[in-house]
Amino acid sequence: MPDQTGRIFEIPPRSGAAFTLDAGQRLTVIDPQGEQVADLLAYVRGDTSEVISSGRTLDYASRLFLTTGDPIYSNRSNVMLRIIEDTVGRHDFLLTPCSADTFRIIYGDEQPHRGCFGNLAAALAPYGIGPDQIPIAFNVFMNVQVDGQSGALTVEPPMSKAGDHTTFLAEQDLIIGLTACSALQSNNYAFKPIHYRID
Amino acid sequence: MPDQTGRIFEIPPRSGAAFTLDAGQRLTVIDPQGEQVADLLAYVRGDTSEVISSGRTLDYASRLFLTTGDPIYSNRSNVMLRIIEDTVGRHDFLLTPCSADTFRIIYGDEQPHRGCFGNLAAALAPYGIGPDQIPIAFNVFMNVQVDGQSGALTVEPPMSKAGDHTTFLAEQDLIIGLTACSALQSNNYAFKPIHYRID
Repeated sequence: MPDQTGRIFEIPPRSGAAFTLDAGQRLTVIDPQGEQVADLLAYVRGDTSEVISSGRTLDYASRLFLTTGDPIYSNRSNVMLRIIEDTVGRHDFLLTPCSADTFRIIYGDEQPHRGCFGNLAAALAPYGIGPDQIPIAFNVFMNVQVDGQSGALTVEPPMSKAGDHTTFLAEQDLIIGLTACSALQSNNYAFKPIHYRID
Repeated sequence: MPDQTGRIFEIPPRSGAAFTLDAGQRLTVIDPQGEQVADLLAYVRGDTSEVISSGRTLDYASRLFLTTGDPIYSNRSNVMLRIIEDTVGRHDFLLTPCSADTFRIIYGDEQPHRGCFGNLAAALAPYGIGPDQIPIAFNVFMNVQVDGQSGALTVEPPMSKAGDHTTFLAEQDLIIGLTACSALQSNNYAFKPIHYRID
């Protein structure tokens, strides 16, 4: 495969992609039109039982919202990715990828879209990663407002504007899953693409 | 095995247990002395790849804090447990079980305890469940205060007083993992037992 470094890849609306990232490489996730969300998963290459962990990362950060400088830990407490640049500063790490079940349970759809979950499962299948291995994703640009008293969670439009981006440094050789989110609430009711670049 | 229904079992301080629960049975988790936490895991018997999911449960509830009436969903969006009685009303579903890594990273311990994570892994091993299959637990009585603006998480003493309890109805045949928590912050700096009863 020719060197893809620096090339801009597009993930079309309501779809997903999977690709590898080498330790030391940087992944930049770009919101080309603004107000779009990208669900991000990372697995250790060679042992895909090691995967990003919301529960460990938030525990060690003692904070719900991550931004520049924050590490993303695996279920084995190893750092997988580190956020090294972030023009938005608001992402979600609480909710699982939207799925056919999400659309059925939350939106009442009778013939639901497979959602980010289905898109991630399809994109990750060639790497031998099954749907049960999909945990809470790091939801880039997703804006979940939290009421600390009641605990109420509300999904608001992303704060990202056209061209905003977040850059992750890979601390290990990884397999990445990434989507252009399929859920109406997450992207202010307009399905849009996501761009990404590897340097 | 003789019928254990209604018997009170004790989980000693800083330890864990695993047992089965049949669909329709009720599990009551009791804090015998007050201000103690019990990490709860549930797996579907016969297919332990199906496990409780914080990310799905919080998404469908649109709320961080669960109490009486709330279902706990699996990673496949099936209801596993339902909270049917709760004298406390404050639990955590954000953080992974404390582990040797927690004690190393957060407390700076050089010879760390294996924590709830190690206790759960040991208790669940006879059921063929490995450590990589341990997700975010439902942390009964754990009191994590959330600042909705900054996202700051602070672990406060549980609101549970001696004798307080939470009862879960099993919606499927389950394997349960349960601990008396090992982390100082979680239980106001005193290691205490946890009691449970199955009816």
